[in-house]
Order: sequence, then C-alpha cells, then structure tokens
Amino acid sequence: MSNNYAEENDRYHAPDNSTMHELNNIANRIRIKSILSTCESKSGHPTSASSCAEILSVLFFKEMKYKVDVPRDPASDRFVMSKGHGCPGLYAAWVETGHMSMEQLMTLRKLGSVYEGHPTPKIDFIDVATGSLGQGLNLAVGMAYIGKYFDKASYRVFCLMGDGEMAEGSVWEAMAFASYYKLNNTVAIIDVNRLGQSEPTSLGHDTDTYKRRAEAFGWNTIVVDGHSVNDLCKAFHLAKLCTDRPTCIVAKTMKGKNMLGQENLHGFHGKAVAAASKDEILAELEKLVSEPSGIKLVPAKPIDDAPAVNISNITLSSPPNYTKGQKMATRQAYGLALVKLGRNCDRIYSLDGDMKNSTFSQDYKKEFPDRFIECFIAEQNMVGAAIGMATRDRGVVFCSTFAAFLARAYDHIRMGAVSQTNCNFFGSHCGISIGADGPSQMALEDIAMFRAIPGSTVLYPSDVVSMEKAVELVANTKGICFIRGTRATTPVVFDNDATFAVGRANVLQQKKGDVVTVIAGGVTLGEALKASTLLEAENISITIIDLFSLKPIDKDTIMSAASATGGRILTVEDHYPEGGLGSAVAEALADETGFKQVQLAVRGMPYSAEPAELLAAFKIDSSAIAAAVKKMI
Amino acid sequence: MSNNYAEENDRYHAPDNSTMHELNNIANRIRIKSILSTCESKSGHPTSASSCAEILSVLFFKEMKYKVDVPRDPASDRFVMSKGHGCPGLYAAWVETGHMSMEQLMTLRKLGSVYEGHPTPKIDFIDVATGSLGQGLNLAVGMAYIGKYFDKASYRVFCLMGDGEMAEGSVWEAMAFASYYKLNNTVAIIDVNRLGQSEPTSLGHDTDTYKRRAEAFGWNTIVVDGHSVNDLCKAFHLAKLCTDRPTCIVAKTMKGKNMLGQENLHGFHGKAVAAASKDEILAELEKLVSEPSGIKLVPAKPIDDAPAVNISNITLSSPPNYTKGQKMATRQAYGLALVKLGRNCDRIYSLDGDMKNSTFSQDYKKEFPDRFIECFIAEQNMVGAAIGMATRDRGVVFCSTFAAFLARAYDHIRMGAVSQTNCNFFGSHCGISIGADGPSQMALEDIAMFRAIPGSTVLYPSDVVSMEKAVELVANTKGICFIRGTRATTPVVFDNDATFAVGRANVLQQKKGDVVTVIAGGVTLGEALKASTLLEAENISITIIDLFSLKPIDKDTIMSAASATGGRILTVEDHYPEGGLGSAVAEALADETGFKQVQLAVRGMPYSAEPAELLAAFKIDSSAIAAAVKKMI
Repeated sequence: MSNNYAEENDRYHAPDNSTMHELNNIANRIRIKSILSTCESKSGHPTSASSCAEILSVLFFKEMKYKVDVPRDPASDRFVMSKGHGCPGLYAAWVETGHMSMEQLMTLRKLGSVYEGHPTPKIDFIDVATGSLGQGLNLAVGMAYIGKYFDKASYRVFCLMGDGEMAEGSVWEAMAFASYYKLNNTVAIIDVNRLGQSEPTSLGHDTDTYKRRAEAFGWNTIVVDGHSVNDLCKAFHLAKLCTDRPTCIVAKTMKGKNMLGQENLHGFHGKAVAAASKDEILAELEKLVSEPSGIKLVPAKPIDDAPAVNISNITLSSPPNYTKGQKMATRQAYGLALVKLGRNCDRIYSLDGDMKNSTFSQDYKKEFPDRFIECFIAEQNMVGAAIGMATRDRGVVFCSTFAAFLARAYDHIRMGAVSQTNCNFFGSHCGISIGADGPSQMALEDIAMFRAIPGSTVLYPSDVVSMEKAVELVANTKGICFIRGTRATTPVVFDNDATFAVGRANVLQQKKGDVVTVIAGGVTLGEALKASTLLEAENISITIIDLFSLKPIDKDTIMSAASATGGRILTVEDHYPEGGLGSAVAEALADETGFKQVQLAVRGMPYSAEPAELLAAFKIDSSAIAAAVKKMI
Repeated sequence: MSNNYAEENDRYHAPDNSTMHELNNIANRIRIKSILSTCESKSGHPTSASSCAEILSVLFFKEMKYKVDVPRDPASDRFVMSKGHGCPGLYAAWVETGHMSMEQLMTLRKLGSVYEGHPTPKIDFIDVATGSLGQGLNLAVGMAYIGKYFDKASYRVFCLMGDGEMAEGSVWEAMAFASYYKLNNTVAIIDVNRLGQSEPTSLGHDTDTYKRRAEAFGWNTIVVDGHSVNDLCKAFHLAKLCTDRPTCIVAKTMKGKNMLGQENLHGFHGKAVAAASKDEILAELEKLVSEPSGIKLVPAKPIDDAPAVNISNITLSSPPNYTKGQKMATRQAYGLALVKLGRNCDRIYSLDGDMKNSTFSQDYKKEFPDRFIECFIAEQNMVGAAIGMATRDRGVVFCSTFAAFLARAYDHIRMGAVSQTNCNFFGSHCGISIGADGPSQMALEDIAMFRAIPGSTVLYPSDVVSMEKAVELVANTKGICFIRGTRATTPVVFDNDATFAVGRANVLQQKKGDVVTVIAGGVTLGEALKASTLLEAENISITIIDLFSLKPIDKDTIMSAASATGGRILTVEDHYPEGGLGSAVAEALADETGFKQVQLAVRGMPYSAEPAELLAAFKIDSSAIAAAVKKMI
C-alpha cells in the first residue's frame, strides 16, 4: 500500500447525511421486499438477504457504476452474488433501481418466472449462475482479469460472499489467483453473519481470522461493521485507492438483521417468515424506513471505455496440413489449432493448470503470451475464471489440463451450464493409453461427465486433422464444449480438406459384405483399422465409423451403417463402459430394434504399464477387436 | 503455543553426528535409487524425489514409529505422500528399511508391478492413492481425526506435500479442518522446491508467504532448510510439543538437489535422467554417500495402543417399521438407518457438509454426537477425510450432502476408487423433484458420475423401507457405494420384511397381459404406480420394476419381465438421459435383441417451480408415463 493510501484514508469524507439516510432506507426496504417475496413463494432465504442489505444498498446506490436499463452493458461494473441463496435481496435491490417491478419480484421461485431460487442469467442483470457455494469469486476474478488486461477498461468487479462458503477451497484458489495477477479492480465482500445452514460457521464472528487469511493470500483487507453504511462507503473508497492488489472487505453482520425475533439467531436459514410473525416483523422494519430525506439516489453511470468485441465466425488461419499415415498426437494439433484461431481473432484466450507442456497450450502461450493465462494447479478456479471471462461475450475461452483433472472442477462445469456459458474445455491424456503414469492420471470417466451436462457438445477427434477442425467447431458452438485429447500419437486418417460437423460421424471405410460396424474414437480408431487388416486376411470385412461427435450423436449414420452389417455393432473405447462412447450408442439405439451392440471398454481399475500392454490387457486393441468381430458373426 | 514450547525449543538437542551422517547418507541413497529406478522405467520424477530426500530419510529413520514388516499395523504412524509423483523416493526409502528389495524397485512402472507411477494401496505400505494433487492432506486429516478422537491412540499422521499443489483449494479446506479440530497429531511438510511442471510455482521460494498462510489457517508453522537433517529433526521435535494445533513444516528445498546439472533448474520435471548424464550424476551422488558411520539406523517401534476394531456384519438394530402407503422422505430413513447401525456398531461415522438438517444425518449426530463430524461447506475435504478415516478398516464411514454437491468432490471420489476405499456416500435432494430451489441444487448427473467409478455400487431406494435396507447393505459392501436420496415424500411400497440385495431389482407389479415393463426409481416409482391406475381405467396393465440397484444392474430380472411384455421397456427417471437409470438399462440390453426401450428423463435445463409442476413439464410424471405406454403399444 502506498503512503498515498494512508493519507487518503485520513482524507475520506463520509457521504452527506441525506445520502446515508437513504442508503439505510434502501437497505431496510430490501429487507421488506425480501420478506414479502419469500412469504409469497413460501420458501427462500430472507435472513441471508437481511444480513447483506446495507452492503447491497451501498453497492447499488453509491459505489457501483452501471447502466440500470442495460445491466449487461460491457462498460457496467460486474456484480457476482456468490451467496446465491441471498438473491431475494439482490432482486429487491433491482426493484429499488426501478429496473424490475414489485410484481415481478412477487413471482419469485414460481413456474415461468426468471426470478428463480438462485440467480441465473435468464435474468438480464445476472452474468453467472450461483447457488453452489464458493464459486462466485472464481467467476469474478475471470471477469476482473479480462477487464484489467484485455478490455483495459474502467469497469470493476464486486463479489459478495457468504462466510459459510469461505470453507470452500475454491475461494482460496481465487484469492491466490487475484493477488498473483494484481487484480486491483476486484472487491470481495464477505458477509460474516456467523450462521450456516445447520449450525454456526467454524469461525463465527471472528473477523480477525478472516482478515489474517485474506491478507496472507495477498489481499488489501478491511474489517467493517457490515450494517454501517458509512463504514462500507469508506471501505469501498479505500478499495479504489489500492492499486497493487485486490481488496477484501470483511463485513461483520447479523443474519436476519432487523428481523424481530430472528436477528443473529440460529434456526431461520432458508425459511420464509411464518405467517404468524410476518406482520410484526414487517411493521418493525417499516418503522426503520423513516421519512425520506427528499433526495433520490441514482446509480452512477459507467465510463464507456470497454472496446467492442467480435467473436463470431472464428476460423483457423490456415487449413490442416498433414500427410495421411503420418503419426502425431492430437494434443499437438490442439495447440496448433489454438494458435491458428488466435491469428484470426484477438479474443481467443487459453487457460491452463500448469500442464501447458503436456496439453500443448504452451504453443499458444509462445505466440500469444498476453492471451494465455497460467492458472497453476487450481482447476476449480481455472474453470470458474474461464466461465467468468466468457461472460458478456468478451472472448472465446479454452481451458486445458489432463482430462482426469477436469473432474476436480465438475461442480463448476455443472454450474457453468446453468450459467449458459460458452466456455470450451480440452482434456488431454485420456484413457489407459497414457501408460506408465497409472490410474490417477487416466481420464476414464470424462465422457460420462461431460455428456451428462445439458446442452453440452462432446467431440473426440481421432487424428490431428479432425482435432484442428474440432477446435474450430467448438469456438463457434454455444454451450459447454469438451474435446477429448490423446497423449499417444495416432495416424492421420483424414484428408486435409475433409469436413467435420458437430453431430456428424465419419464413415471411414465401408463396403458391401461388411459384417460388423465398428465404432471407435481416439486411440481405438487406429486399433480398429489394424483389426480390419487382420480380418481382411481372413476375408472378413468391417465398416469403421469414427464417431467424432459423441454428443450430439449421429444416430442416422450409425443406423444406416449398422443396418448394412446385419445390425451388428461393435463399440470400442478407451473409457469405462458406463456413460462413454458405447453407452452413447446404446442410448441412441435403445428405442430401435434389430441392432445388437457389443461394447469393448476399460473394465476394472487400470495400472501402470506400456500403452500397448494396457490396450491388450483391457481388450480394446486390434486383437480384441478382431476377436470380438469374429465372435459376433 | 505454551511457554513450555519455547523452552523446549531452547532445550532441543540435535541427534549425534553419526545419526546425522547416516540420515544424510540415506537421503542420497534415496536419490540414487530414484534415479536408477526411473532410468530403468524411462519415465518418472527423480528430481521431485530428490527435493524431499532428507525429509524422507528423517521421517522414516528418525521421526516416525512404525513396524517395518507390518506397515499397515493399526499402531503404526501414517504417512501420506500427497505429491504422489515423488514416489520413487518413497519406494527407495522402503528399500532402505529393508522391507522392499532393489529388484522390486527396479520394476517401477512396469506391467505387473505394484510399484506404479503414482502410489496405490496395492503396495502394503500405502494406505491411499495419490497422484491427483492436493488431496493428500484431506486424506491425512481423516486418519488423524480417527486417531485422536476414536482410536485415542499414539500414532501420528505425516503428510508430505509439494509446493505446486498448495494452489489446490482442497489443501486449504484440510488446513481449516485440522486446526478447527485441533489435530495436533498431524504434521504437514511442504516441500517448497520452487518448480512446477511447466514453470515456477506462483510463490517460488517465498517460504514466508507459505508460513503466513498456514499460520492464518491456525497451524503451528516452522520454516526450515529442507536439506538440513538437523533443521528437520528439530522441527519434528517441536511439532510433537505442540498440543493445541497441527504443525506445518515449510521446507525450502531444491528440485533435483545434488543432481549435477539439474539442481534448482527448470526443464527436468517428470523426466528420467538422460543416458548421457546418468553416470556422471550418479558418481557425484556416490561421492556424497560418504563412509558409513558404523551405526545402522532402525525405525522406532510404535506403541501398541490402537484398539481392535470389528466392522464386519453390520446390521440395523431393528427392522424397518412403516405402514404401506404412508408417505415419508427417503432421506429421513437414511438418518434413522444410520442411527440403527450406530446402535449395533460403535465404528459407524457420519460426516456432513453443513447439510445435516436436510440430509437427516442430524439424527445420527443427536444420538451419537461423538461419532458425527461436521465438515462445514468443504465437500472435497469431507470426502478426502472420509476416505482417510476408512483406511486400515478403522471404521465404516458415511458422507452426506446434497447429491449435487458431491460433484464438487468428483476427483476425490475418482481417486477414492484408486485408493480401494469402502467409503459410502449419500446424496439427498436429487433431481427436479426438489422444486423451487432451482437447478443449482438439483442433482441430475449424479448417477452418471457414480456409475462411472470402477467397482462402485449405486443404489436408488424408492421408499423408506428400501432406504433403510440400502444403508445396511452398503455398510457391508466393498468399494465406493452411493445411495441416492429424494427430498420429497414417497409412498411406502415394500413390506417391512422385504429383502433387498445389491444387484437385485424389485418387481413391484406384474401380471399376465402386461403390455410394457416400466422401470423406475425414487420419485418416479410413485408416478409409475399412479400411471398404472390411470391405465387400468383403460384396461391397459403394466409391469413395474423398482430398479433399486443401478449398479450392478439386475439384467436377468429386466429381461425376463420385458420379454413378457413384448420386449417393450419404458424407463423413467429424475436424472438427465445421459448415464442415468435409462442409460444403465440401455447398456445392459445393448447386446440383446428383441427389446425396445423408451427413455423418459429430464431433457434440458430445469428451473424453479413446484415439484409436481416440474415432473409434468419435464414429462416424467404419471401422465407422461401413461401417455408413453399408450404410444408404445
């Protein structure tokens, strides 16, 4: 902190009395509205809204700069309500701004209303869904990073957290990230209301310990009375002056503040006020909303300095350029494809978790060091930050690490879908084909994981040509996209000008008299081709499909090919049998008759060995495929 | 810290010179052996082993008390190598103890060897698998909790972490947990070797910041030169004297220490020494292994005060006692069943993440407060600690929270399978049937997630009778077990003396002339029964199967029932279509012909509304079932 900072602290002037008066009035009106709406829905969290009512009033009517009528304007400050269950208070604040009506608020949690139990971007003033705790700051630091380093704009990012969620490790990943990258445009506010859902939090009202932790993680930290609008105004003033690090405001608050019979008491979490006490509680609050001061607080307008961004129709700067039969790892083509996208679009961002030399995102860093973000070994924050970066269409974001370690961020990915994110994921080192490193490093459940995300796209390129095209495709595809990458080299099987599409499988070989349709992906495609050669020697021929798009799946191509092979299908995959490639085919064909599918997959826990030894041991290699084909006919 | 502590610090006597000499020799022999074994396997992490060689020698030959020939003896100290990739060093330490041979070590990473690229419990001296970073301390604090509070034994728990993995939030969840529960039997050592895989860590050699963070999280923290055996001995001595908190030793080290041309240099992570430099590097190390001092260091024996434990044949203290048709939530029966198990076995442990009043694990806390562990909102640590508690068969552990939030710990669960854990998971509040809280709280991918864990058991009880029996079953089932629980009340459909088995479906109704076999689970079973009534009015009858055991699945029962209904199957589930109940059925029947399965599932992103409204909107209610049946015939 500079000397200037200390001087400014002395120099701080409190808002005038009328302003403070109004900020308090707004806070209590937020409480009243939160109680009314949750009473109407008969569920929700009015006491969690009450503890942060002054924080919300000061933020929305004194501190933040935003366009009330265009909440998602790129220039507007960002606000993330990490404690999503407190959203009746947030909605109430927007009623106070005039952007939302009381009638709308009273639809809270009801069928057809966008004002759900936890915030989602169906609402125009919400960028990201919250409700799974401890994720808000991950999202916020992504927004702040893009604001400071790419938009280079004036907007700032505010994140309101509950104290209970400070137990989530993901918060501390974000804390470390924000200080490392000096995100001084970030302000985190911890609403320390002492009470969790089922008992007091581990730290209760021990604001000093929160302060020590935040400071140790490199944040400018200020402890305030979270119900004092003056304290809050002063803290936000100081936050603006801190130029070398983010600011954390530790606000001591009372859960159920100003709610008669509930303030600072356990047992009222997630409960609408009972009918019997509603009138009395509201009457007390109405008393606190004293005479208006005569002034009307209006949110400040932002500075319009966020640049226009175009992220539509992103293409590779040059087409794939390989030789058929050449062997190369698809992960290498991932890195190269990113570079090619980056050459055509300056809004492509690559994030990695200290795996860039394995995922080949290092190639992107080499060519575009400013558009690569090292997230270190903190996958939850990497994913959250990526989702945050992708909000308001500020960029096209790719996250990469070993596919196995994306499991670390599954809840963040799940929530990303609720956030309607367009974030892209690349998981390298899938399956047993990685070899000697052993099962901890092998992704064998990643397809199951990503397929079960609503609206997701799951691509599994088998060679470098299709990998480059997959990267191009997902850059232009809405929703969560996952590309599965292989560590080992695989042969180039496609022409450089081959076309690929989301939802389209590639029939690699097919001829009259084929007895079985083999459906493969990644490393097993090469095995299927080898099996075909083995079988040809016995005058047995097979159709081979490179599934490529696991979701959406190309049911028509599969059915048409399989119908020509007597309904016989053999799926073979470097994944556990549950939820993977074979499962996708089985699901697609479940309501059809006349097909019989044999599923080769990794059954049981793998171990360290050479890739070829493992493919053989787990019966997904060419010999196993040939044997299975022969058994089927 | 007590005054006593400061005095003892002064009073510390260093080991004699011969001992220190030998500890140094052992450290360098660990380096040599790590290099030899990784050269033989042509992969592995010798430089990561080298940075912690003195830490390992001091731990295994001076500090830890254990039975060399019975590594998993309940009385032995526990050691968790969180930085699993450094395992060649750990294996080498065990060669030094004489428990393992050099020949065994030279099988590192090879087919058939238990000495894999990352440690797993296939090795008799490994309790838990590591290799996905940042999980070791979660596991360790579980072991420490059971040691201090249940075994009340002398053994202690040591966890060696890398500095790179300190970026993982899961570490800080464990740090908070350990200090909150005053686990002074825990010592964490951070091997601060400055270098990650692809670049330096975010903190480099800044040991002061590590110290501040650990202290802020409540740990007794000591910074040492990690290559000074005297420093290390002294730090471990101080750790033993600290009675009110765990100790963290921040050890400044050099990656590739004593490896000529590699020490403290980037670019050697995860690489076996090149053939060209091997001899020179080994020669330098041999020089450092100076003349033996004449003494032979022998690990100290532990105190045999860990009690015998019997966790076999665990039964409910009384059978289910409900009335058919009565409506009750299965989650309530979960709590009650836990209590009933606890009455018969004092080694049943319940962990929850501040959701106990929703999951009903609070009932267990009420009756057995000492056997309940509040983990606060930190699911990764909850799961890791639970897996740690279950090691060495010290107890039967149940983890509960909303099923949606188990996604937060998916990587820990995945690794739990590699650890061969028998830990049990209960996820409440599955599906859209929770209603107004909205999608962030709805588990709709949990079945997919748990089915894709090798060796897992997935049970989905539809009523309270089967829930009680499910809890009893999983308490006696090996591997990872998951029970899915419903928020809403569901009707009792089973007799109190009905029998249930893992892998067995329950045919609830079946008669000649049934046209479709409806397979349901949880809330959809009641819907299927209602649909049956609707259809009976039109003289259409259906077979209804309560699938109960989603994995393993009862293929025989399904086939036999479906064959009697013309091969027609209708699956209906409160889960996304991918990887869920319907997918399990489709996978099971993929290689059979003559069946046609229609899958009703939650398609698309749900939202806040009343449960019944959502079941109708997403077409998994009785009307949708009846309509689907009619469409099929």
